Amino acid sequence: MFLELDGHGPRYAQLIRALKSAILEGRMAAGSRLPPTRELALQLELSRTTVLAAYEQLRAEGYIEGRVGSGSFVADLPVAPLPDPRRAEFCTPSRYVQRARMQRDIRPTRQHYDVRFNLLSTNPLINPTLVNHWSRELARAATHTALEENGSQGLHGLRQQVCDYLARRRGIRASPEDVLITNGAQQAFSLTARVLLDEGDTVVMEDPDYFSAYQAFAAHGARLCLVRTDADGLVCSALPAGSPRLVCVTPSHQFPGCSVLSLSRRLELLRYAAARSCWILEDDYDGEFRYDGQPLAALRSLDGGDRVIYVGSFSKMLFTSLRLGYMVLPAALREDFITAKYLSDLCCPVIEQAALAHFMENGGFERHLRRVRKELMARRKALIEGLRRHAGGRVEIVDTPAGMHVVAWLNGYDHARTDALVAHARSRGLGLYPMAHYVHTPPPRAGLLLGYGRLTTSALQEAMQLFGQCLDEMDAGVAAAS
Amino acid sequence: MFLELDGHGPRYAQLIRALKSAILEGRMAAGSRLPPTRELALQLELSRTTVLAAYEQLRAEGYIEGRVGSGSFVADLPVAPLPDPRRAEFCTPSRYVQRARMQRDIRPTRQHYDVRFNLLSTNPLINPTLVNHWSRELARAATHTALEENGSQGLHGLRQQVCDYLARRRGIRASPEDVLITNGAQQAFSLTARVLLDEGDTVVMEDPDYFSAYQAFAAHGARLCLVRTDADGLVCSALPAGSPRLVCVTPSHQFPGCSVLSLSRRLELLRYAAARSCWILEDDYDGEFRYDGQPLAALRSLDGGDRVIYVGSFSKMLFTSLRLGYMVLPAALREDFITAKYLSDLCCPVIEQAALAHFMENGGFERHLRRVRKELMARRKALIEGLRRHAGGRVEIVDTPAGMHVVAWLNGYDHARTDALVAHARSRGLGLYPMAHYVHTPPPRAGLLLGYGRLTTSALQEAMQLFGQCLDEMDAGVAAAS
Repeated sequence: MFLELDGHGPRYAQLIRALKSAILEGRMAAGSRLPPTRELALQLELSRTTVLAAYEQLRAEGYIEGRVGSGSFVADLPVAPLPDPRRAEFCTPSRYVQRARMQRDIRPTRQHYDVRFNLLSTNPLINPTLVNHWSRELARAATHTALEENGSQGLHGLRQQVCDYLARRRGIRASPEDVLITNGAQQAFSLTARVLLDEGDTVVMEDPDYFSAYQAFAAHGARLCLVRTDADGLVCSALPAGSPRLVCVTPSHQFPGCSVLSLSRRLELLRYAAARSCWILEDDYDGEFRYDGQPLAALRSLDGGDRVIYVGSFSKMLFTSLRLGYMVLPAALREDFITAKYLSDLCCPVIEQAALAHFMENGGFERHLRRVRKELMARRKALIEGLRRHAGGRVEIVDTPAGMHVVAWLNGYDHARTDALVAHARSRGLGLYPMAHYVHTPPPRAGLLLGYGRLTTSALQEAMQLFGQCLDEMDAGVAAAS
Repeated sequence: MFLELDGHGPRYAQLIRALKSAILEGRMAAGSRLPPTRELALQLELSRTTVLAAYEQLRAEGYIEGRVGSGSFVADLPVAPLPDPRRAEFCTPSRYVQRARMQRDIRPTRQHYDVRFNLLSTNPLINPTLVNHWSRELARAATHTALEENGSQGLHGLRQQVCDYLARRRGIRASPEDVLITNGAQQAFSLTARVLLDEGDTVVMEDPDYFSAYQAFAAHGARLCLVRTDADGLVCSALPAGSPRLVCVTPSHQFPGCSVLSLSRRLELLRYAAARSCWILEDDYDGEFRYDGQPLAALRSLDGGDRVIYVGSFSKMLFTSLRLGYMVLPAALREDFITAKYLSDLCCPVIEQAALAHFMENGGFERHLRRVRKELMARRKALIEGLRRHAGGRVEIVDTPAGMHVVAWLNGYDHARTDALVAHARSRGLGLYPMAHYVHTPPPRAGLLLGYGRLTTSALQEAMQLFGQCLDEMDAGVAAAS
């Protein structure tokens, strides 16, 4: 018998691997006797204990039979060689996978990591004091929370806090029974696809659209129908004549276009949905951050017909990797969504839910939001002032006093020149993000999405100065040489 | 104008609600002038500041127009009444929902909460020292971890730890590129459904089966084909002649039947899958807990053809509400699963992943497992000894030295009498769980799933004594009177 150890890991494991291979590959035939442990130990320079333990394990796993003393024998196994994996045939992928593979740039990784000034819009402001508070809340929750699952709908205490918050800040009246805790807004989209949509059903989205929601619906098999937006948000007169199953909107602050859906349009949209028996998904991703007085009441608060599924995200209000969000559900859908959540992943992590509930209850959440709101306001001001000073006349700013980003349309730029500007800015240490990367159908004008959540006011001033220089350099043709 | 405040919450919010209702219901016509703030304040006994602020908010939201001073006017809105919500028509539910609604007892809530001795099998042992360790790990991770998302596949450091663990304990060789971090095993099932299954595709499961996985596949639209198991696990000769797309097995410790899939059967199953180009899902939910030597190598470790999707769960090894698990993916499926995870919920919470990675790296996880394994072994022994002493001859114990539960078949009991026994035991403070509740098709014999993870050895001794008394009382007909 020829046994060679592969040299990886403990000798015991090496011996087991070598014996298994010899048996499975038929080099040691069924019924043949294994060498006595003493002999094999000597041959491979192992301790006899190691060989004994390996034989014991092989016996437990069914590779060998017999007892130490009377000898061990190779078990009778179906060891005809398995087909060559290199020639393995796999089934054709599911339709879901086929559709997912067709999505443009799924899982966008185009973030500039190596720049001094990063104007990425999708990550919220990091409040430095939050880290300590959150660390304390987690530690506390871990010692105070029952470690069992607590129902798929989410922790009752957190759902209650969500209702209090929504009543106070978003004008929504809901009871904990209406709320479902999700892994961020993205899970709300994918659960909505599961519960509401069959393949081929029509979903209306705003154009420009939020690509991750678009992709979730498209991979699920929905037919996406994009409806244009203007300064008042979704153009309701352009809604399709047929009966879509769902209309997705970002009424508080259109993503990424920045418009706010006007009251007339809100009423028009509700009427449209009621007439066609379709549902509305209100994605209120940054509705909290409104800088000219109280935030606007949510679309859901106008909805007498109980057709609006409201989606909110703590990931946007606290930090991205938290992965907690919530839905306020129409009564007719509630049980089906809870079931879909159960079947998807049973429930959200309970310690995190308890930590968040306590953080909201003791006022830490509101204090955090006040601080973030104030800081975002200052940053927005710095960005816009800098933009006006250093790029005035060359950009057109879409100026909604809300959210964490502004849109700057570039005068005299097409998409190709914008890409050149982005590449040049990057070489100068400035991370810019073209609108075209954020939307499904590239917008008619070239523009940039300027996020101000990640840079301090003084960094934003410097960044805007650099932005102006980059524009100058593009004009002077310097960029081409860089 | 008649305005009545509803008395709920701050007066400012009450005034806004009252004005909005009056406008939206047409009681205040488009273009009509609002009362001067001073006059309204007097009329409603509010401060003028409150009225001014309310008007300001209504202006921001588009309900009124004009400026303070020159007067405010009701905006021209489409205020025809919305259809009566009580007569609202909703679309028919999606096929997913129709199927989910047909599942038997979805989201099982039949847990006995109010009993002294609870023999529930699905929750793991709670290690009291874990609470403090985990609390510290979370607090540490919260201050050390970048708060941004970190890719849909999961934290690299955690995936590396998973690979080290799998090599050491389950005989699986994998690199971090093969691993996907999920929200527990349930998400692994639902992602598998998305990635592999179209409606009508066949999935083979063991009979008896793990109901939550069954339900996820059934709701997705799979055709479930149950194949019987015996003392050697899945009976491979009974596998369907056609080509299923997926075979789901629990080789280490069949759930809930307790058998271990024999080596011959493992090889047979791999050959079956290779011949039919189908995938295997290995649900190794408690493979870690084996009490007679090293745990058996996983099916995945035998799989030369890269057809086995391996699913592991930290929720079973640490605590249920953690909601972290992982998959080891065949190369051909890896990208599609990562995309499906991205579209489902972007990624798992990063602080928890970092906490777990650190806990594994510093040896805390192995220490925890050793402690739990030792304690489970003692509890299993106490349960079985108690069962033999107090119910010997009246039950048949399925005795696999693994996992967190045993099966006790009840001699001379049918399902109805078992239900009566469960009801009686409950009245006596003992929580029992019939096999029939855990499986899709009730097993031919009546039996109980006895979980020993939640009770100490002395509690288990008492519980078994009580169990014996309950059986006596059933025999004596006392139970009927209780």
